[in-house]
Amino acid sequence: MRTPALAATSYSFSSPTTLLPFSRSVTVRPPPSFCLSSPVVVSRTPSTKWAKSSTLRLQATSSSSPSPMIEKETPESEKPPTFLRETDGSTSSSTNSVRARFEKMIREVQDSVCSVIETVDGGGKFKEDIWSRPGGGGISRVLQDGAIWEKAGVNVSVVYGVMPPDAYRAAKPTENGDVKPGPVPFFAAGISSVLHPKNPFAPTLHFNYRYFETDAPKDAPGAPRQWWFGGGTDLTPAYIFEEDVKHFHMVQKSACDKYNSDFYPQFKKWCDDYFYIKHRGERRGLGGIFFDDLNAYDQEMLLSFATECANSVIPAYIPIIERRKDMPFTDRHKAWQQLRRGRYVEFNLVYDRGTTFGLKTGGRIESILVSLPLTARWEYNHQPEEGTEEWKLLDACINPKEWI
Amino acid sequence: MRTPALAATSYSFSSPTTLLPFSRSVTVRPPPSFCLSSPVVVSRTPSTKWAKSSTLRLQATSSSSPSPMIEKETPESEKPPTFLRETDGSTSSSTNSVRARFEKMIREVQDSVCSVIETVDGGGKFKEDIWSRPGGGGISRVLQDGAIWEKAGVNVSVVYGVMPPDAYRAAKPTENGDVKPGPVPFFAAGISSVLHPKNPFAPTLHFNYRYFETDAPKDAPGAPRQWWFGGGTDLTPAYIFEEDVKHFHMVQKSACDKYNSDFYPQFKKWCDDYFYIKHRGERRGLGGIFFDDLNAYDQEMLLSFATECANSVIPAYIPIIERRKDMPFTDRHKAWQQLRRGRYVEFNLVYDRGTTFGLKTGGRIESILVSLPLTARWEYNHQPEEGTEEWKLLDACINPKEWI
Repeated sequence: MRTPALAATSYSFSSPTTLLPFSRSVTVRPPPSFCLSSPVVVSRTPSTKWAKSSTLRLQATSSSSPSPMIEKETPESEKPPTFLRETDGSTSSSTNSVRARFEKMIREVQDSVCSVIETVDGGGKFKEDIWSRPGGGGISRVLQDGAIWEKAGVNVSVVYGVMPPDAYRAAKPTENGDVKPGPVPFFAAGISSVLHPKNPFAPTLHFNYRYFETDAPKDAPGAPRQWWFGGGTDLTPAYIFEEDVKHFHMVQKSACDKYNSDFYPQFKKWCDDYFYIKHRGERRGLGGIFFDDLNAYDQEMLLSFATECANSVIPAYIPIIERRKDMPFTDRHKAWQQLRRGRYVEFNLVYDRGTTFGLKTGGRIESILVSLPLTARWEYNHQPEEGTEEWKLLDACINPKEWI
Repeated sequence: MRTPALAATSYSFSSPTTLLPFSRSVTVRPPPSFCLSSPVVVSRTPSTKWAKSSTLRLQATSSSSPSPMIEKETPESEKPPTFLRETDGSTSSSTNSVRARFEKMIREVQDSVCSVIETVDGGGKFKEDIWSRPGGGGISRVLQDGAIWEKAGVNVSVVYGVMPPDAYRAAKPTENGDVKPGPVPFFAAGISSVLHPKNPFAPTLHFNYRYFETDAPKDAPGAPRQWWFGGGTDLTPAYIFEEDVKHFHMVQKSACDKYNSDFYPQFKKWCDDYFYIKHRGERRGLGGIFFDDLNAYDQEMLLSFATECANSVIPAYIPIIERRKDMPFTDRHKAWQQLRRGRYVEFNLVYDRGTTFGLKTGGRIESILVSLPLTARWEYNHQPEEGTEEWKLLDACINPKEWI
């Protein structure tokens, strides 16, 4: 039996690509061992008004089953106006904070993306799950087996947690080494989405945008306050239509260029590097943009940039879907799409930092794994014949191209 | 460009569940960091007579693509009489070694299992791939899209490698700490197989048996010679037929009881513990037996025991297949089977020590991932209704049962 008051807990991530606290090159990076084993304490606030116990249909009775590392999330029946704590977002003085404005932005983007997807799909409807944990919560929306999309998930979440001091690289002891920083509270909010269409000529799209803050007082010894933005939008087709890929990358470049002409080339490469399936020697798809730990620019500028990127999802993706959703296809096309979906599964389960971290620490599994396709396929030693359309896609995944 | 003579290399595993060098509780365990990052040096012997360069249809031209950590295996056109090095198995004095007899056993089991599967299938034929690396090699056999099995893989392999001394716990410096052991050569051989039938009432079977030796001279300071056996056979149905599961476990118990009456209860529990999908709180299937690091018994007895277990695969499995292979089923049954296949993928890609290690260190990918089903499915938040057949299976995966 788990004793809730004593249970070791950890970051509570619902949509992990949204909320990954790893810092790629800058301030905060949990050491490898942390991801694998170290329990982390989630800060405990008094129960919110919508807290109630979760129900589980099937439960382990065996005492040998390991307990989850974090508390289960609690299902909710109503969306709160904000998932922020009172001090963060619900007073007149705090509604203008970056946290509050970022949460507002991602919830608006969730609404607009879901609305457009439902309209274009013309058949499927999003199912909504609202959930909370002490401090924070989220909204998961999934459209399954629609007319156009076989699985479309759009999640937002807000997480308050505490990371151990040795996971926080910016946390330094004082010069004589005798003052050790304590655990570092953090805040993370994000939107994460994967859209898998049925038609093998219609590409999968993934995007996520997230904002992260450590919560320690700015001048606390040993634990300077930090913030950063992360995210990206990337396209995963099974077949290449150059006009589609060019259009997609052009929209990403336009969003980037409004802020900094270095962003697109830099984040395009970062995307190609990140979505690399190392054991295959190929990328998951044809890229887009990806960035993390972004804090070397003005915070307001980056909030605006992340908003611009998130608002570019619809104009980047929907025109492609409109062109491809009704194209006739054969069993061969479908089987190739399914093989590429298998690669998608491999990337997400083996490499994606958010997914692997979320699985290890006990995030909301259904929200984490909504990124997986409805169906996927693995054939032994499948190699497309040179010169075929399948070969061209694989070649572009192995050797990333400049599309514009 | 990779310079072969300088490339950092690692254990060369082809069928990783077969050849995993991790020791669960006894002698040798690479530290976590080792699995994630540390390159390991494969011992280099002169090219064998069947060594030739491998060909790749599609190759990365981008210099930014990380190089594999180990050399590519080389395809071969003929099976050598043994994959052992000359000193190990091809002289009259060495053919009686445990290494040589274990290799002989697994190659015979591969032949007999493949022969029976082909006969029962009545349609599909195994495709054979032979490959080698400097020292060692393997035979991968895959039957795909047969009449009864949608994917059946049976692999054997023999690996010579060198593990770093800090991965070898038995390697201790001398008492005054000034003699550090060098890298520890090892030998590993094994058979690994996953059989996925088409009919949702016919269960998936997995088995693997492996033998491992460190190669250092017995009395070398700091690096005592060690050997152990590992393996197991487990059943993963989508629906429970009690007579099937009882029969399967009875055959495992009979094989165990011939050697030690503690084996079945001990290895049955070990199996339930090992095939645990932690983020789901459920096992992959209905278990069987699993053991690792087995060296606390007479070596000859354990060789005989492993042989008995491997030879029990056919009598444990084929009677079940004969009963279920032609049962009529509906789309609902097939969809549930596909969801359970999704769980199989999750376990193998996220938790299976052999698979994750093999992917990270650059084993033969197609041999490693032949364990994945031909097709799999992920539905958002699928929960079977209480009391249904699907619910009963899930309950047995969450709460392992005693079947006999």
